[in-house]
Amino acid sequence: MVSSTTGGKAERPTVVVLGLGLIGGSLALALRNNGFAAACIGWGHREASLRRGVELGVIDRYTLVLEEAVDAADILVIATPTLIADDMLERVLPRLRDRAQPPVITDVASVKGSLQRTAERVWGGTPPRLVLGHPIAGSERSGVEASNAGLFERHRVILTPMVGNEPSAVELVRAMWQSTGAEVVDMDVAAHDRVLAATSHLPHVLAYALVDALASSDASEDIFRFAAGGFRDFTRIASSDPVMWRDIAIANRPALLQSIDLFTGHLAEMRAAIEAEQADTLLQTFSRAKAARDKFAALLAARSHTAT
Amino acid sequence: MVSSTTGGKAERPTVVVLGLGLIGGSLALALRNNGFAAACIGWGHREASLRRGVELGVIDRYTLVLEEAVDAADILVIATPTLIADDMLERVLPRLRDRAQPPVITDVASVKGSLQRTAERVWGGTPPRLVLGHPIAGSERSGVEASNAGLFERHRVILTPMVGNEPSAVELVRAMWQSTGAEVVDMDVAAHDRVLAATSHLPHVLAYALVDALASSDASEDIFRFAAGGFRDFTRIASSDPVMWRDIAIANRPALLQSIDLFTGHLAEMRAAIEAEQADTLLQTFSRAKAARDKFAALLAARSHTAT
Repeated sequence: MVSSTTGGKAERPTVVVLGLGLIGGSLALALRNNGFAAACIGWGHREASLRRGVELGVIDRYTLVLEEAVDAADILVIATPTLIADDMLERVLPRLRDRAQPPVITDVASVKGSLQRTAERVWGGTPPRLVLGHPIAGSERSGVEASNAGLFERHRVILTPMVGNEPSAVELVRAMWQSTGAEVVDMDVAAHDRVLAATSHLPHVLAYALVDALASSDASEDIFRFAAGGFRDFTRIASSDPVMWRDIAIANRPALLQSIDLFTGHLAEMRAAIEAEQADTLLQTFSRAKAARDKFAALLAARSHTAT
Repeated sequence: MVSSTTGGKAERPTVVVLGLGLIGGSLALALRNNGFAAACIGWGHREASLRRGVELGVIDRYTLVLEEAVDAADILVIATPTLIADDMLERVLPRLRDRAQPPVITDVASVKGSLQRTAERVWGGTPPRLVLGHPIAGSERSGVEASNAGLFERHRVILTPMVGNEPSAVELVRAMWQSTGAEVVDMDVAAHDRVLAATSHLPHVLAYALVDALASSDASEDIFRFAAGGFRDFTRIASSDPVMWRDIAIANRPALLQSIDLFTGHLAEMRAAIEAEQADTLLQTFSRAKAARDKFAALLAARSHTAT
């Protein structure tokens, strides 16, 4: 370790971030800037990124040794990609048993059920100080260079407290996110995964499937030549990171499959109505969807407005 | 008719627009402003709209009598909604047989095959001076009040000349659109309907199906509460006019059903890969889609850049 934390129990927590990408870096920077953290320590595999994090003022110091990182933490944030978060839990949790005052652990992954299952298997029950979380924020940019202390302002962070969690651990993680300007809401793990499957994971799968279907068609050249702005907006999310979305699709498999089946059922009904030229059915369905979408857009606009 | 056209054969054509909405109004305004038309005459059912069109300088004059409108035209533009365009053709075509120099007829509907079939049935073959077209332009706004002479600038207009069209008729329609600043391209009717099904009609059906599926789910309240900007972009087109999209879905039924089936097949493959946790297959598919989408976005950006 480049420098050691102060011993004893500090008033302000030492925050250790495992994985210094956009999310981890932005969180560390926010917690340093707003004074929530006594110190922010980075851990990762790529020393160049960690050194850059120190240069940019994103973290105070770093270590390449996971055990040192864990031992230094009052709050340990697993900010690695989704599938690796699983491995990190497997490596980190056993080390906590021996500590008198183990750190509070949280994460930022897009899927919570897979981490809960891993944690319960490794720990043999719910780790009392593991509080899973998910900031609904992102950016086209990635990496520590893109760290932005304002990334979470006016954004939602979902916490998924588990039966068996220490209330004080949940409150510490809540306070950490609130200090960044985020709006923290609680959901249970299964509800989180269902809601994210519906609003985020399913749309990504549909966009990937649409672009892949059109690209493989005989007329693909003409298709992309004549596609316009509406198509660009609709398919924007198909330009997302394939590795990340492969990981999310697999980690949230059960909820995602349910969402796909729900969607496929509705699409099949719509197809049947088109084939049978059932004009009234189509008008009813399109009108119902438009009403729901307009209501959602108004809610979202009101939320941004209130928050600004 | 409020005023009559000049008799004889004018150098500049008199353009009659049937249906004075956003597209018809914008075209008339552009053709008056740029001097292409000797006069623009509006026809429709709602006199208030037509009178407003005169007040706004969108048209020179109007009539409520279809026969008068047809007889006054050198170019007749059917700018009514898609399904009504069919009826208009049925009413207008028989009246042309008796004229020594019948007008050139064109339209702006999103689907061409259904109009071609109607025309051939009514005329008993291809009407030589009927040149079907489709401006790829639109706006959130609608109605004559939204008329915008610049609406077609740097936008594509697809013409679908048919075997049996008089070349001079095709060239007149091409010149008309080019005068508005549009880029005119030719496609055959079937190709147009396939390409538009893939890039526009299918995405609309998918967006409607997704929002309707989520709105009908037990968790719909939570779903819309936690949906964010990505979901808003992906579902924006589900806020489109349900009547217009019912009409388009029915008018372009064969090509749309093909597109839905192509998409459904790809989605089913993706679902199977998720269920079987075939990480490599998912990564390959997502990567292929991302590459195609990135390439498309670059093309679109280059096109806008060149055009500006």
